Amino acid sequence: MLIVMKQDATQEDVERVNEVIEKLGFRPHPMPGAARTAIGITGNQGAVDRTHFENLPGVADAIRVTKPYKLISKTLRPEKSVIKVGNATIGGDELAMIAGPCAVESFDQVFEAAEIVASSGAKFFRGGAFKPRTSPYAFQGKGEEGLKILAQVREQFDLNIVTEAMDEHGVDLVEKYGDCIQIGTRNMQNFSLLKYVGQTRKPVLLKRGMSATLDEFLLAAEYIMAEGNYDVILCERGIRTFNRYARNTLDLSIVPAVHKISHLPVIVDPSHATGHNYMVAPMAKAGVAVGADGLIIEVHPCPEEALCDGAQAMLPEQYFELNEQVKAMRELMFPVKETVAV
Amino acid sequence: MLIVMKQDATQEDVERVNEVIEKLGFRPHPMPGAARTAIGITGNQGAVDRTHFENLPGVADAIRVTKPYKLISKTLRPEKSVIKVGNATIGGDELAMIAGPCAVESFDQVFEAAEIVASSGAKFFRGGAFKPRTSPYAFQGKGEEGLKILAQVREQFDLNIVTEAMDEHGVDLVEKYGDCIQIGTRNMQNFSLLKYVGQTRKPVLLKRGMSATLDEFLLAAEYIMAEGNYDVILCERGIRTFNRYARNTLDLSIVPAVHKISHLPVIVDPSHATGHNYMVAPMAKAGVAVGADGLIIEVHPCPEEALCDGAQAMLPEQYFELNEQVKAMRELMFPVKETVAV
Amino acid sequence: MLIVMKQDATQEDVERVNEVIEKLGFRPHPMPGAARTAIGITGNQGAVDRTHFENLPGVADAIRVTKPYKLISKTLRPEKSVIKVGNATIGGDELAMIAGPCAVESFDQVFEAAEIVASSGAKFFRGGAFKPRTSPYAFQGKGEEGLKILAQVREQFDLNIVTEAMDEHGVDLVEKYGDCIQIGTRNMQNFSLLKYVGQTRKPVLLKRGMSATLDEFLLAAEYIMAEGNYDVILCERGIRTFNRYARNTLDLSIVPAVHKISHLPVIVDPSHATGHNYMVAPMAKAGVAVGADGLIIEVHPCPEEALCDGAQAMLPEQYFELNEQVKAMRELMFPVKETVAV
Amino acid sequence: MLIVMKQDATQEDVERVNEVIEKLGFRPHPMPGAARTAIGITGNQGAVDRTHFENLPGVADAIRVTKPYKLISKTLRPEKSVIKVGNATIGGDELAMIAGPCAVESFDQVFEAAEIVASSGAKFFRGGAFKPRTSPYAFQGKGEEGLKILAQVREQFDLNIVTEAMDEHGVDLVEKYGDCIQIGTRNMQNFSLLKYVGQTRKPVLLKRGMSATLDEFLLAAEYIMAEGNYDVILCERGIRTFNRYARNTLDLSIVPAVHKISHLPVIVDPSHATGHNYMVAPMAKAGVAVGADGLIIEVHPCPEEALCDGAQAMLPEQYFELNEQVKAMRELMFPVKETVAV
Repeated sequence: MLIVMKQDATQEDVERVNEVIEKLGFRPHPMPGAARTAIGITGNQGAVDRTHFENLPGVADAIRVTKPYKLISKTLRPEKSVIKVGNATIGGDELAMIAGPCAVESFDQVFEAAEIVASSGAKFFRGGAFKPRTSPYAFQGKGEEGLKILAQVREQFDLNIVTEAMDEHGVDLVEKYGDCIQIGTRNMQNFSLLKYVGQTRKPVLLKRGMSATLDEFLLAAEYIMAEGNYDVILCERGIRTFNRYARNTLDLSIVPAVHKISHLPVIVDPSHATGHNYMVAPMAKAGVAVGADGLIIEVHPCPEEALCDGAQAMLPEQYFELNEQVKAMRELMFPVKETVAV
Repeated sequence: MLIVMKQDATQEDVERVNEVIEKLGFRPHPMPGAARTAIGITGNQGAVDRTHFENLPGVADAIRVTKPYKLISKTLRPEKSVIKVGNATIGGDELAMIAGPCAVESFDQVFEAAEIVASSGAKFFRGGAFKPRTSPYAFQGKGEEGLKILAQVREQFDLNIVTEAMDEHGVDLVEKYGDCIQIGTRNMQNFSLLKYVGQTRKPVLLKRGMSATLDEFLLAAEYIMAEGNYDVILCERGIRTFNRYARNTLDLSIVPAVHKISHLPVIVDPSHATGHNYMVAPMAKAGVAVGADGLIIEVHPCPEEALCDGAQAMLPEQYFELNEQVKAMRELMFPVKETVAV
Repeated sequence: MLIVMKQDATQEDVERVNEVIEKLGFRPHPMPGAARTAIGITGNQGAVDRTHFENLPGVADAIRVTKPYKLISKTLRPEKSVIKVGNATIGGDELAMIAGPCAVESFDQVFEAAEIVASSGAKFFRGGAFKPRTSPYAFQGKGEEGLKILAQVREQFDLNIVTEAMDEHGVDLVEKYGDCIQIGTRNMQNFSLLKYVGQTRKPVLLKRGMSATLDEFLLAAEYIMAEGNYDVILCERGIRTFNRYARNTLDLSIVPAVHKISHLPVIVDPSHATGHNYMVAPMAKAGVAVGADGLIIEVHPCPEEALCDGAQAMLPEQYFELNEQVKAMRELMFPVKETVAV
Repeated sequence: MLIVMKQDATQEDVERVNEVIEKLGFRPHPMPGAARTAIGITGNQGAVDRTHFENLPGVADAIRVTKPYKLISKTLRPEKSVIKVGNATIGGDELAMIAGPCAVESFDQVFEAAEIVASSGAKFFRGGAFKPRTSPYAFQGKGEEGLKILAQVREQFDLNIVTEAMDEHGVDLVEKYGDCIQIGTRNMQNFSLLKYVGQTRKPVLLKRGMSATLDEFLLAAEYIMAEGNYDVILCERGIRTFNRYARNTLDLSIVPAVHKISHLPVIVDPSHATGHNYMVAPMAKAGVAVGADGLIIEVHPCPEEALCDGAQAMLPEQYFELNEQVKAMRELMFPVKETVAV
């Protein structure tokens, strides 16, 4: 069930509804919107009696939810969510560019990459300190030491740090050093971890599982939101198909599909999806054209020396060129309204 | 093996090489290019002795081919092929827009659709007279009667007709009435049919099979070309994956993958791939952004009355809007060089 | 619609119903069963008025068909179909073993293989004279010459010949020389070819398309049956998935799925599905255990010299061992009732 | 690198090699086999100098490992591993039957099911106390309370308990109450969890991820073994494909593929793979025929009342019948050698 408040409902009205929900033993999830606030209810088994709500002051309607998801849905919040990540946002008019190396390897490598990213005007820096590797014998990341380097990048370059956590300990550390907790594709249905990041108050970048359906993807976000953390950014990064010429198949049609159902922003990762340098730029542009809210791109000062995924990293000059092109495309597609200075 | 001719080789030189190839019992496939002509050789079992060619006048080099394909390859023709279809081309600077209804249903429906398409400035009209339907009891198309309607469209609107053939009889008819023979996804590895269209002299639009690998797709084109018909346009139309929210998964990464290996143009069909009206425009734009040479779009004057695939057809006004947007995107991506009038 | 006849309906009653159907402009498909005859109707657009039939003598019921298929369905024929192929059957109590080389290469190779197959007690011999190869430059089969060799095998070894046709000309030839027309996986939705074999009176072995759904597979059989040829044997031969350790993924669960819906027999091809010799025997046994009506196995007197697919062919001794094992398994699973000699 | 000991090497010889490995800063993994012991080395970056080992007493050979996996491999242990689970084993001659309800729902439901399972002669009982559900609002399992019920089942029925853990806390609890820790399909690449169960000394049942390749599956086992827990049982439970008639596609060909490379046992889960009651028995039999070391089957005293996955659970009588059939099949395939009592 969700409670839609009237446009002129007061904060007091909203709180009164919250209290009623809590008294019933459930959990209220108020979502303020441009025109009105709606309040999702979770924790109930079966239907909630609407008569509890319909006569409360400020309540416009009490709506049964028939879909498996409640909080990710546009029924609850018709406008797109604009998620604050550090001192910037994802989901608004501006295309979010998240760039950086696959893995944090050394102070110098990270700082060189950060200089490139910062000079391009991007506001987000990526780089993994914990790396989920298929083999236990592959480089597993530099851990906390890597996170400290990323924290210095934020200091020096004013970039917001997006970095992966693989378990509760990692979440605690990323909360301390970073700005956005990435949940990787292999953990998309690690429900214990989803609940745990749902209890932090850092935004979460949730990557789609390699064979996740649309519903599974949205319900993974719902796991996080049901714990009270509403700042979820979805990320398409390629699905597993029979294709062999690219590492995975970037499924861009999920972008309009998500936008049709959910208020959450969705970004695209062409680097991991394709695994090949020559495909990254065209697929990044396709991601922008299809309406993604951002891109996450691997750029490495020296790809041939990368400890991990060097084959897909962009060279600095490729990245700069792409950055200009996607800005121009975004401007063409969504011309930013001029604000008249008074 | 392929024979690369010198830049200043004469037509006579080329013909002399062709004759040698034929005398050896093989088939020559001369491909004139901007800088030089190359001649592919088919019909040989195993290696051809290069000493037959290296001292002939005009021959620059004789190259062993180690890939499974010969004629589709950029080794043979480094420049992109620009395919003539009726009085227009596909593969050049201009984005090719092929639009029309899924099936030819009636004179009125087709003419209404053709008026929309022609007024948008598109040069190609699509519409099926032979429909490959999953069920034998579904509408199978109007056959020759439908083709005659399409021929009238060409007369009246100066549109070039792209339409499917499902067997040899159909190929004969499309050759008579249309401008481009479409081979559908279910026939991509109908090798007998591929050989048959390879013997016509009409361009062929070859749709990717629903689970075709890149190599299988390119080798299907090779089947056509090996028979002497070099005018093949590839078309990505969605692959079969576990996804259920779209009919198929449009695999846009195949566009740069094809362009890396082959000189053939490749277009994108977002209508069949997605099966949903709301996804067609975003995926069409993504197709243009990724570098496709054209789009094939279903537009129907009255989608809710369509006998086939109405759910995915665009309304006229949606189509006009999309058309403007993709033109602007194409212009942004590949600004057409101004020709200075002297 | 389908018309169920009473148990005691006469042949005359059936014919009267057929006539009524034909007068309405439709096509009757009478299917005699153990307990009663039912008559499928095709050719109608929309519902048929049941009042035409319900008062005719011998008619028990007139049933609306709500599924996309009519003739493959157990609603029409509740008992499993036992298909006559040459002088043997597929679909009865006995496991059908179809064995032989991938391709007909030479008289000696085929006769050596046939000796092995015949001595194992198998009743069916396979071997391709027309080979659908991914590349136009690969060995395409020996054509009619190959079929003549197969016809000699039938003469000499009393084996029934199962061999592929790829087009109408091939169908005509297989009809002349062979006992069962195989339609390959790449032609499963070559609807023109399906209609053509539907007009022959030879049984058809229909291989599942590499990415065909259950409904698409059954409807491909329906295409053949709608033309009046009811002798269709389905064959699972592996689907295309992300797996790389086997050529395709043998989808054995389709065997019970087909048997739940359809009266048609379904056999399994572990050779093409796996592509690896070491997997053929275990997957063949799994096919028998799951309830398949037969196996189609590649055996080659000398696999390392095979012109096509040698890596998957069984050695003679492997084949003999497998043959013994699956006979024992089949006997365990479906003990043949002893017939008391009087 | 792996060190192969001579047949007559003493325990002292093995320990000396272990010490040398540890002094080099690496970790030794001794695997005693029927004929000889081999010692895997992990923790090294790059090659290890073999001269450290080749002159040590008892050392037969020092072998470079070129595959991504070391400990799962038959190179290290040529014989199949027989894993002790509670008071029984998996991987030996006897087919392991693991049966029980999907989820622990109540004391009565579990005890009723356990009675059925025990009376069939099975030695393992399954039932989930922690349920990884796609939706946060679905029944999530009874947690520790459920584990206590399972512990009582072990007491009363002498059944060994196989049950899932989803996080470190769950692993601790399953270690306390159960006999085998199941890692579910969604956690197959939850590498932190794999490392954690690698540090317990309870056997681990590792389910294949829904889109895991063979290498990814084996390397997930390698993660566990690299931590020193060598008791890993692999489980095929269906992969995600385009098929819709079954929940997933049971990929039985992975059984021979695993057995070719690895010494680990592999079992099959036909219940989760198919999701349909009518498919469970045929696919279970196919699993036995293909050579699986065991089956994990859902049986519920009252499937229509199950809180989770009732559609796939077997009825008691179906389960008894299947149990008899697979025992007979196993006996046919691998006749147990009679032991002569002296």
